[in-house]
Amino acid sequence: MNREIYQEPLVSRYTSKEMQQLFSEKTKFTTWRKCWVALAEAQYELGLSDIVTAEMVAELKANVENIDYDVAAQKEKEIRHDVMAHVFEFGSKCPKAAGIIHLGATSQFVVCNTDLLVQKQAMELVRSALLQVIQNLARFCDHFKDLPTLGFTHYQPAQPTTVGKRNTLYIQDLLTDLDYVEMFLSNIKARGAKGTVGTQATFLELFKGDGARVRQLDELVARKLGFSGTIPVTGQTYSRKLDMKLAEALAGIGATAHKFAVDLRLLSNLKMQEEPFAKNQTGSSAMAYKRNPMRSERMTGLARKLMGLPQDFAATYANQWFERTLDDSAIRRMDIPQAFLLTDAILKLFVNITSDMVVYPKQTERHLRAELPFMSTEKILMAAVERGESRQEMHEVVKEHSVAAGKVVKEEGLENDLLVRLAEDKRIPFSLDELQEMTSDYQQFTGRAAAQTAEFLQEIVFPILEANASSIGNFDASLSV
Amino acid sequence: MNREIYQEPLVSRYTSKEMQQLFSEKTKFTTWRKCWVALAEAQYELGLSDIVTAEMVAELKANVENIDYDVAAQKEKEIRHDVMAHVFEFGSKCPKAAGIIHLGATSQFVVCNTDLLVQKQAMELVRSALLQVIQNLARFCDHFKDLPTLGFTHYQPAQPTTVGKRNTLYIQDLLTDLDYVEMFLSNIKARGAKGTVGTQATFLELFKGDGARVRQLDELVARKLGFSGTIPVTGQTYSRKLDMKLAEALAGIGATAHKFAVDLRLLSNLKMQEEPFAKNQTGSSAMAYKRNPMRSERMTGLARKLMGLPQDFAATYANQWFERTLDDSAIRRMDIPQAFLLTDAILKLFVNITSDMVVYPKQTERHLRAELPFMSTEKILMAAVERGESRQEMHEVVKEHSVAAGKVVKEEGLENDLLVRLAEDKRIPFSLDELQEMTSDYQQFTGRAAAQTAEFLQEIVFPILEANASSIGNFDASLSV
Amino acid sequence: MNREIYQEPLVSRYTSKEMQQLFSEKTKFTTWRKCWVALAEAQYELGLSDIVTAEMVAELKANVENIDYDVAAQKEKEIRHDVMAHVFEFGSKCPKAAGIIHLGATSQFVVCNTDLLVQKQAMELVRSALLQVIQNLARFCDHFKDLPTLGFTHYQPAQPTTVGKRNTLYIQDLLTDLDYVEMFLSNIKARGAKGTVGTQATFLELFKGDGARVRQLDELVARKLGFSGTIPVTGQTYSRKLDMKLAEALAGIGATAHKFAVDLRLLSNLKMQEEPFAKNQTGSSAMAYKRNPMRSERMTGLARKLMGLPQDFAATYANQWFERTLDDSAIRRMDIPQAFLLTDAILKLFVNITSDMVVYPKQTERHLRAELPFMSTEKILMAAVERGESRQEMHEVVKEHSVAAGKVVKEEGLENDLLVRLAEDKRIPFSLDELQEMTSDYQQFTGRAAAQTAEFLQEIVFPILEANASSIGNFDASLSV
Amino acid sequence: MNREIYQEPLVSRYTSKEMQQLFSEKTKFTTWRKCWVALAEAQYELGLSDIVTAEMVAELKANVENIDYDVAAQKEKEIRHDVMAHVFEFGSKCPKAAGIIHLGATSQFVVCNTDLLVQKQAMELVRSALLQVIQNLARFCDHFKDLPTLGFTHYQPAQPTTVGKRNTLYIQDLLTDLDYVEMFLSNIKARGAKGTVGTQATFLELFKGDGARVRQLDELVARKLGFSGTIPVTGQTYSRKLDMKLAEALAGIGATAHKFAVDLRLLSNLKMQEEPFAKNQTGSSAMAYKRNPMRSERMTGLARKLMGLPQDFAATYANQWFERTLDDSAIRRMDIPQAFLLTDAILKLFVNITSDMVVYPKQTERHLRAELPFMSTEKILMAAVERGESRQEMHEVVKEHSVAAGKVVKEEGLENDLLVRLAEDKRIPFSLDELQEMTSDYQQFTGRAAAQTAEFLQEIVFPILEANASSIGNFDASLSV
Repeated sequence: MNREIYQEPLVSRYTSKEMQQLFSEKTKFTTWRKCWVALAEAQYELGLSDIVTAEMVAELKANVENIDYDVAAQKEKEIRHDVMAHVFEFGSKCPKAAGIIHLGATSQFVVCNTDLLVQKQAMELVRSALLQVIQNLARFCDHFKDLPTLGFTHYQPAQPTTVGKRNTLYIQDLLTDLDYVEMFLSNIKARGAKGTVGTQATFLELFKGDGARVRQLDELVARKLGFSGTIPVTGQTYSRKLDMKLAEALAGIGATAHKFAVDLRLLSNLKMQEEPFAKNQTGSSAMAYKRNPMRSERMTGLARKLMGLPQDFAATYANQWFERTLDDSAIRRMDIPQAFLLTDAILKLFVNITSDMVVYPKQTERHLRAELPFMSTEKILMAAVERGESRQEMHEVVKEHSVAAGKVVKEEGLENDLLVRLAEDKRIPFSLDELQEMTSDYQQFTGRAAAQTAEFLQEIVFPILEANASSIGNFDASLSV
Repeated sequence: MNREIYQEPLVSRYTSKEMQQLFSEKTKFTTWRKCWVALAEAQYELGLSDIVTAEMVAELKANVENIDYDVAAQKEKEIRHDVMAHVFEFGSKCPKAAGIIHLGATSQFVVCNTDLLVQKQAMELVRSALLQVIQNLARFCDHFKDLPTLGFTHYQPAQPTTVGKRNTLYIQDLLTDLDYVEMFLSNIKARGAKGTVGTQATFLELFKGDGARVRQLDELVARKLGFSGTIPVTGQTYSRKLDMKLAEALAGIGATAHKFAVDLRLLSNLKMQEEPFAKNQTGSSAMAYKRNPMRSERMTGLARKLMGLPQDFAATYANQWFERTLDDSAIRRMDIPQAFLLTDAILKLFVNITSDMVVYPKQTERHLRAELPFMSTEKILMAAVERGESRQEMHEVVKEHSVAAGKVVKEEGLENDLLVRLAEDKRIPFSLDELQEMTSDYQQFTGRAAAQTAEFLQEIVFPILEANASSIGNFDASLSV
Repeated sequence: MNREIYQEPLVSRYTSKEMQQLFSEKTKFTTWRKCWVALAEAQYELGLSDIVTAEMVAELKANVENIDYDVAAQKEKEIRHDVMAHVFEFGSKCPKAAGIIHLGATSQFVVCNTDLLVQKQAMELVRSALLQVIQNLARFCDHFKDLPTLGFTHYQPAQPTTVGKRNTLYIQDLLTDLDYVEMFLSNIKARGAKGTVGTQATFLELFKGDGARVRQLDELVARKLGFSGTIPVTGQTYSRKLDMKLAEALAGIGATAHKFAVDLRLLSNLKMQEEPFAKNQTGSSAMAYKRNPMRSERMTGLARKLMGLPQDFAATYANQWFERTLDDSAIRRMDIPQAFLLTDAILKLFVNITSDMVVYPKQTERHLRAELPFMSTEKILMAAVERGESRQEMHEVVKEHSVAAGKVVKEEGLENDLLVRLAEDKRIPFSLDELQEMTSDYQQFTGRAAAQTAEFLQEIVFPILEANASSIGNFDASLSV
Repeated sequence: MNREIYQEPLVSRYTSKEMQQLFSEKTKFTTWRKCWVALAEAQYELGLSDIVTAEMVAELKANVENIDYDVAAQKEKEIRHDVMAHVFEFGSKCPKAAGIIHLGATSQFVVCNTDLLVQKQAMELVRSALLQVIQNLARFCDHFKDLPTLGFTHYQPAQPTTVGKRNTLYIQDLLTDLDYVEMFLSNIKARGAKGTVGTQATFLELFKGDGARVRQLDELVARKLGFSGTIPVTGQTYSRKLDMKLAEALAGIGATAHKFAVDLRLLSNLKMQEEPFAKNQTGSSAMAYKRNPMRSERMTGLARKLMGLPQDFAATYANQWFERTLDDSAIRRMDIPQAFLLTDAILKLFVNITSDMVVYPKQTERHLRAELPFMSTEKILMAAVERGESRQEMHEVVKEHSVAAGKVVKEEGLENDLLVRLAEDKRIPFSLDELQEMTSDYQQFTGRAAAQTAEFLQEIVFPILEANASSIGNFDASLSV
């Protein structure tokens, strides 16, 4: 690492090697060569064998990885054109094919097709890690589907739910994210062989006006590169609208991670739930007992940045003029890798946290117990009415004591004494024991939370995980910092 | 209109009545009532007929539109609770059913389900107008598929394309937008009957612990409201992630409109293409001949605002705590209508402009002619080589004269004289006539542009339009300002 | 209120009459007239008295408020030009001056100068309310400067601070916001009399080539309108960069309000601090004791929207072409009022909340007490070292018990028993009484928090409030919803 | 360069060494040491000389640059705490002072103060380059203040202005940017010595309760580090609101650069003005004459990204909880360097372009000439009225021919023949010669454009440049790619 100049922390600190490699020069330049191979081979197969021979194609194929980067860099410096510099370097390794490399093509032939191929692979990495998070959370939900916990609205105690049920909400949102990832993957196509402004003019000349062959060329190159097809029409580049959709798909994952992480940071304050604490991790030296939710905090910050990127892509697309302007170049060069690297960093944290998330059932119960008297008032009221009391009167009595008990807690800092108050009030036809009995089974207040969790997992989540069993990630989620 | 206070211009100036009505109080409150009817009816059908009778359901149904807004508003002021105020008002119209309105439900039962229903209808309006724009553009592309025009990269002349082909690029982007609109519409489901924090606790009590019935209730209410199903799990509200996806789908349309409008504004400067000019529209009084592209400019500004909204939704979703916090309320109340109204205003302009877009073929040709000598150099070069000249020498000669001709244009403000220069250079084996002949057929430089246009329309666009024939909009695109 | 169409909630729900009026048609059109009066009067004074007479100026002045809006609207519909329609209507009230209204001016003469005047007044309203919030918070800080409270880092207990000290942080940020508001106000100038593209060409003709007079005209009009000067150079409009700076100044206030509101919502969960609860406000019917922090939640959402606006202004400015393009019109028409109305709504809430913010000292103490044993370990350690124990050994002992006590709390849901553990460990040379004594004075752990608060108020805040005593708001912060 | 993994292009392609170094590990860690030196020295001077001796301070000072990074990195890996790792490494170089390094301080003592110092230096680099751009543009404006050019509104021809005048608008906006840069620089203060949550508790203990000394310490450390003072109150860190203001100041520069670059790209299409074309730069091989405005396009893209960053900072600030949460860490680590590096890259381009910007006077005149007949109609009309014709009739005649001439241009692709048409119309009392004479002096239509330019430069720009003569940049604006 060069300590004299700025180092991008996404690479030096947060991301997986796999993702870093996808956006390396090596990946880029070898993929350029794969594009040239595909083009030559397709030209050969479609009848240009007088110009492009089988031998040439073979020579090109043999040299895809054989790149002398320094030579190419030197050439680029000289002619100020990166694609031509690599045509030259490739040609120097393939003396027979040198003249037909890039034949009829424009720079964007390699640039766009490579961009799209890299995005496809990067998105598959994302998909895989996303499935891993879903799997982790599904196990967690299954395990804690019955554990009652305080629901919160306005971050104020509300009706109880269960720990598992709460976490199904994150899964459901991740499934929405997965939908958009799938949509992107199923839509992605090659830019193919379209020429300078997308009209295939040079290819048409090359094929002496045989439009059908030119069309086949476009499709064949796409297939050879592993795409399901070619984008029907393009300008000089594929439409930057696709970048916008890419960024939105990734930002969606960021947003879910953000919501999850913020909730976990709040739970951590409540001492109800925590991110796993690594064995060798220590709290601060002064405060050994402290468990700062640092991974959730980092996830929050990374997600915030990721969520800010789609607007760059929207503006870039919306301000492209005609067949293409180059104001897309520098910003895409930064933002596409950033979007994927941020997503990668977030999913790495997400896998790590969900692998071994800690629940504190006693604290969970303690919080519930403190608020349960308030939540039981409806039940008490109904029981009283069944014993013949007036609903209206009971309502007034309960309300009066609720407000008083609330005050005791807030103003005197004492425990919730509502049940005692009610028991002591002669108008209420229950003893303290009876009241405590009524409220002792927390489960009764959670409605169908456990059932919903089970149904959701069985009917929706597990089938998806099974259908994708082979592509669920096995992400090494150990963290370096 | 009240001139003493601020009036939102989206409503007063830019949008369609249909969209304005969807976000009115009237639509909201009558839809609340439809939710209450669906709930009561489902409860009745699922076995609560001892509590909810057929007669009550009939009474509710009969009074859906019978709202006394002033009474409700007065009640709301008193009890500071809008839903309860409308329960009261509805009850006053339905004396028999008064006691069972909203039975077991929480406010979000009506609020969320209504939000989703309105979004569904609004998105269908959007879809319809989007199809209309696509239809307009398809006709335009078909008509001008052969007309050669200068392609631009860097906003500098590049290889020619055709007017039709250029416009297929917008259609293709609109089809991507349509994909996301369809995805939203096919995914939208009811929030159903889920209770305060989504556990269905009160409904479970109501059905005396019969979970299967409660589950049926959730589904049945959804169906009765016209949804394809119910969202599997919710907190107090449906997940705000869906709002984020909604905003992205609409912002996508904004971005396409922005790109289109900016291109048209540039074409307008080039005098090559224009938005239609209304009969009764006059240029500025001082400059009667002036045709300011005001609709495209407005579209640009509205689209910019629309493209800025998704971040609000992302932040709202990502910062929701647990089962729900109310920091979503005011911002959604503004941003959801704004997003749809902006889209509506943009599509209204888009329909208007594409209905009768003006092309100036002579100016289009004039621009092409001015640059064509430069673009023909490759052709001239190849012809010279065929006549036995050295390619390398010819390349140098052509380059030298190209640079000189370029200077004549820029530095002397004169016409491009490249062909004359070449004809006068003895090294070039062609007369001026021959050179002019070689470059006279503009069509030859446009490659497969016309064919691509035809294929794209036939194979992709027309089938979509046919399949959706019944839902293509018939948007009244006359503009009030 | 029209219930058939969408109503912008900023106006119908959240904002002050003063701000709504500033962005009304009435304010706009009467200000246009003031611009015309200023222009005519300046022309008269600078030597055009043969064309513009004193009588005409008097007639114009007398009719500034005398607007027949319906006539103007009808005329606008006819000629599709709002400024000319109002020139006509003004002229119909001023028969003598009819011919010289708007003499030599372009539409942006009235539009820009009016925009700037309205912004100036709106920003002064903002400034006034901002000062009121600062004053409220200053009183609060002064009152609670000594009250110890748990500091939080990572939302985990950290060293104690005081309630007053914490709140000085918000004041300091609001003072930064005030700086930017002041900067905006001290920089705002008139667009003056500059002509179509800013060259003053028509005015130069009017003054028969007398450039000095034209320059004077520009300045004089600015002064007459109440500006400190005129913007040196403009295109057709004043630079939209100023709008960007305007939006940033307001968004800054939004961001501070957001941070404050989120903290308060967390404190509300902790039962340590709350927004005031209105007398007639009731909790939810089922949960009468509940105090949802609804105003802070609303403030959060409104602030989020406000913070999203600057990007619109940045994009609008950055994409203006040459002397002006009209893609600024629709978006500014929405966003400038929105930015001010949102700020107004936020400050209204901010004043309301800070006027009577509730602190629960007992709960504050309770939280502190629960964590204090942990925070006292350093002190205990030092005391033990003073009694001759080995620092290293003591550190190990304390750490071991800290971790164990932390576990008791989290895993068993019990109270922090660290002091008991330490007292029972023979290696620790203190009894439980001694340990409790050591930690009983919370104040000792708050360092200079109280002193800092007092200094900050005395040295910085109070002087600013005094210097601005006359412009501190007296905002009616009662809320309608 | 490592080609196996992603390389951040801001560093590898676009920015200056000076800026890259400011955000290097070397700068960070040596600045940490400077903070420790300042702290020790201040402690020594303020009476802790029994603990912190002069000899220790001297030892620390001598070893500021003497860092063994590998040792520190190894230690960090072990204890997972970067600050403590560097305390250790510094201590190993300073055996006498080892025990008093970081005495009483918390990590943020070095982290925040270093951040602020680096920001200050980076902002001074920005300021310097900004002044250089202003100087370049001022020379350009001065040179071309008289050259008439078409003004554009709606990107349609409007009244003429001058080339110099148009460019004063960019200068004026850059001066606004400079104002905000100055404001940031004049406000920036040290975080000083504040302790864990900002209460100075540990320092108060260290100084045995002597609050006055602790306050002095805070100020003295700030001064020693080169700050004008210390921030009055802080939490654990300085307020992230300052980061927001930092980002806005830089984004302002980005926005101005964006507007400038877009205008230049349009002018480049019009062949009226261009970025300088490097000697060794070639057009594309196929199109040697082509001058793609690649620097302006790159500037546009970089500026777009820069303009997107403030929202990250706003969200980070607005979501900080209490005294500090760590969700600021990863995002600030990326975004603060990015914001400065983007600004640096943009200003480097801006200096480069404005150093030698090319104007094509003949093309400029050609465009003007083509539109001038339209713009002269008012003049012709007035001349005709002076010759006794009816204004109304003349207006009709002129309008009729204007519209016809406009059609000839657009529909027939021919030159503007308005003057010929007017000359041929008997109702118009002028010959073609007379009409041409009337419109031949373009200068007459530019009003006070030249005078405004001269005044603006003399009265505003030059004085600022003179006052800052010593800090105007001498930026090496050669570009590597």
